[in-house]
Amino acid sequence: MSAEAYDPRAPGLLAFHDSVAGFRAGDDTPAAYLARCLRRIAAAEPCVKAFASTRLDGAMAAAEAATARYRDGCPASPIDGMPLGLKDVFETRDAPTGRGARALGENPGRRDAAIVQALRAGGAIVVGKTALPELGFGPPAATTNPWDQARTPGGSSSGSAAAVAASMVPVAIGTQGKGSLTRPASYCGVYGFKPGHGTIHRGGDGGSQATITHVGVLAGTLEDAWITARFLSHGAGPHPGGPGLEGPEAPPAPVKPGVLVRMEAAGWEGTGESAKAAYQGQLARLARRGVTIVRAGDDPPWAALEAAHGAAAQALSAIADYESRWPLVMVLERDRDEGTGAFHALTHERGLARLAVSREDYARALRTRWRYRKRLAALEGDGVFAVTPAATGPAPRGLDATGSAVYQWAS
Amino acid sequence: MSAEAYDPRAPGLLAFHDSVAGFRAGDDTPAAYLARCLRRIAAAEPCVKAFASTRLDGAMAAAEAATARYRDGCPASPIDGMPLGLKDVFETRDAPTGRGARALGENPGRRDAAIVQALRAGGAIVVGKTALPELGFGPPAATTNPWDQARTPGGSSSGSAAAVAASMVPVAIGTQGKGSLTRPASYCGVYGFKPGHGTIHRGGDGGSQATITHVGVLAGTLEDAWITARFLSHGAGPHPGGPGLEGPEAPPAPVKPGVLVRMEAAGWEGTGESAKAAYQGQLARLARRGVTIVRAGDDPPWAALEAAHGAAAQALSAIADYESRWPLVMVLERDRDEGTGAFHALTHERGLARLAVSREDYARALRTRWRYRKRLAALEGDGVFAVTPAATGPAPRGLDATGSAVYQWAS
Repeated sequence: MSAEAYDPRAPGLLAFHDSVAGFRAGDDTPAAYLARCLRRIAAAEPCVKAFASTRLDGAMAAAEAATARYRDGCPASPIDGMPLGLKDVFETRDAPTGRGARALGENPGRRDAAIVQALRAGGAIVVGKTALPELGFGPPAATTNPWDQARTPGGSSSGSAAAVAASMVPVAIGTQGKGSLTRPASYCGVYGFKPGHGTIHRGGDGGSQATITHVGVLAGTLEDAWITARFLSHGAGPHPGGPGLEGPEAPPAPVKPGVLVRMEAAGWEGTGESAKAAYQGQLARLARRGVTIVRAGDDPPWAALEAAHGAAAQALSAIADYESRWPLVMVLERDRDEGTGAFHALTHERGLARLAVSREDYARALRTRWRYRKRLAALEGDGVFAVTPAATGPAPRGLDATGSAVYQWAS
Repeated sequence: MSAEAYDPRAPGLLAFHDSVAGFRAGDDTPAAYLARCLRRIAAAEPCVKAFASTRLDGAMAAAEAATARYRDGCPASPIDGMPLGLKDVFETRDAPTGRGARALGENPGRRDAAIVQALRAGGAIVVGKTALPELGFGPPAATTNPWDQARTPGGSSSGSAAAVAASMVPVAIGTQGKGSLTRPASYCGVYGFKPGHGTIHRGGDGGSQATITHVGVLAGTLEDAWITARFLSHGAGPHPGGPGLEGPEAPPAPVKPGVLVRMEAAGWEGTGESAKAAYQGQLARLARRGVTIVRAGDDPPWAALEAAHGAAAQALSAIADYESRWPLVMVLERDRDEGTGAFHALTHERGLARLAVSREDYARALRTRWRYRKRLAALEGDGVFAVTPAATGPAPRGLDATGSAVYQWAS
């Protein structure tokens, strides 16, 4: 492995989907593709610190098996041979699962998460498990933003976003509760695609079976985001009771939306001028291509929905807190009671504060969310979509916080 | 411990709730209560085989702690000191969790299930984990029906029902997917109370996060069933997104229903004459007390719902199969691929057959269930309830099957 120096801009973001024709023709192979990723990991990882753990030897053996399948004309799936990062909340039988906590990361699990089982069956290659803040809400991991190492990559899917942004892998799996995927995607300048709740099985995410959590993909290209998410929803299935992700195996052709409704609500005031200008510029480009842009505030039913955003955001926060009681807060209570000091004081403080949400608060919050979703569903329609910025600006400086989720609290 | 002979009828079913006044007054203690249970366990368990594992020493230490709390006037909950059985699907830190399979029962888990955490906090005492068929759907456990050892106790909450019926414990926790709690309750002659879906947190049930699974209570008295289920829904909370179980801490006063709608559907034809007579006799007693009994077939909207029961039952079966793919069927596939032979051939056969349900079948089945539930909800109203037999007759002879779930497939 060469010891080239790390240059964040050098390779551009990786694509996988457009290598498949080469794999089939024999001009390129998954083993060679992985070798390129491994060289880049060797150069970038010491600076980026995207991974909680890696399995590089096992990865090469898997890439050689994928190479053989393409050579024989029978790849296992559209993502056969794809090297990827996996947020370190998903259980795997061959690596510890830490959820950002040293205390939890000692032993490999006894089973694979539902999506890990699907990834293995489809020939995709987990090269490593990506870093996150302690238990998702404690102090951030050491991961840096590949575009500026003095800035946060965002969180909690910190390592997944950074691994893709540093061109170490074409795709990484993340999860979203309150902006945990879309915000780091924005800060790191990669695609973040989180399909709706329940479209991808989250069994074995080590978490609380919370209703707020859902699985998504960070990727260097829109095409890779699609083929991976679509494969996961079909291979692992939707989460029990969920709708599944419909659509073709290959990335579907783009469809021009009819109307985009700008929802800015509480976030706009705190959004920086450069971010506002970039966002407005983007919408202006769409308008010039024939898309109608409507400000929510100028359309009474949308204005009413935007006004209800604050209450919905508060409800989502209460839901997130209450639903983390088992097992996360249980783990912290035990650590406190037994005095083992396995977790950071800040993790304790934030985690135990979640117990303040009562069962009655929770029931009320569920009703608020239900009403908000019903109103949103009634307003959306054929060709009508709500749009919102992903973040209040570029990634903030400093590695001790992961930025504001103000735009992602009502979902 | 005395070596008294096992006589199934000797003690009558145990009650816990009416001992609490004695605990408070000092006339009785949780330690003495547990000692009586342990004597009964020593006498009955060799014949009944209700438990997969027991923790009798730890149980006595916990009962002595509960005794001290009552003495000090500060019991931890309405079920402080209650000895109970726990279906061996729930993770516990101090005992293996086998799901009826030797292959899985080797190590204690790393965490407590949500309800186990609540039980500990409330001072209840898990004396043992109760037996079930292998993975719930494989060959039954060795458990016998305490009323007739040649008959099945029903399943899959086999050991929970038998432990209560044999007066070894006043209460045992079970789960229900397709009649897994109400059928064994019926066969064993104990109360089976399964509140609606999502009312009790099922985190750590070791299962598939299936939408069909829910938690309930088997008990010797209606009062103990209530105080336990109510405590679990408040202590562990509802399952994320679920409604919770409302009502007072003490068993509420009985309320006379206005109308009971008899739903017999596909089950009635296969129901034995003695069971039909017992059921009709029970309904006649209610009618004499002023409850209106209506046959679903005589009321057109209910008749239409009853006619849709077959499709709903088929849908539930497809849902159950598809939702068990992770992790249960994954475990079987791995066992098959690695040739370790850790599971019974019948478990393999039944488990792997579940893979025949496609993602499209599953989506269709979810829609069928949704429509059925909506129709049922529209017909039920203040004082109007549907009733159905719990089983087609007394427990069948033989221990190699757990009876027919024909009455419990549409829920």
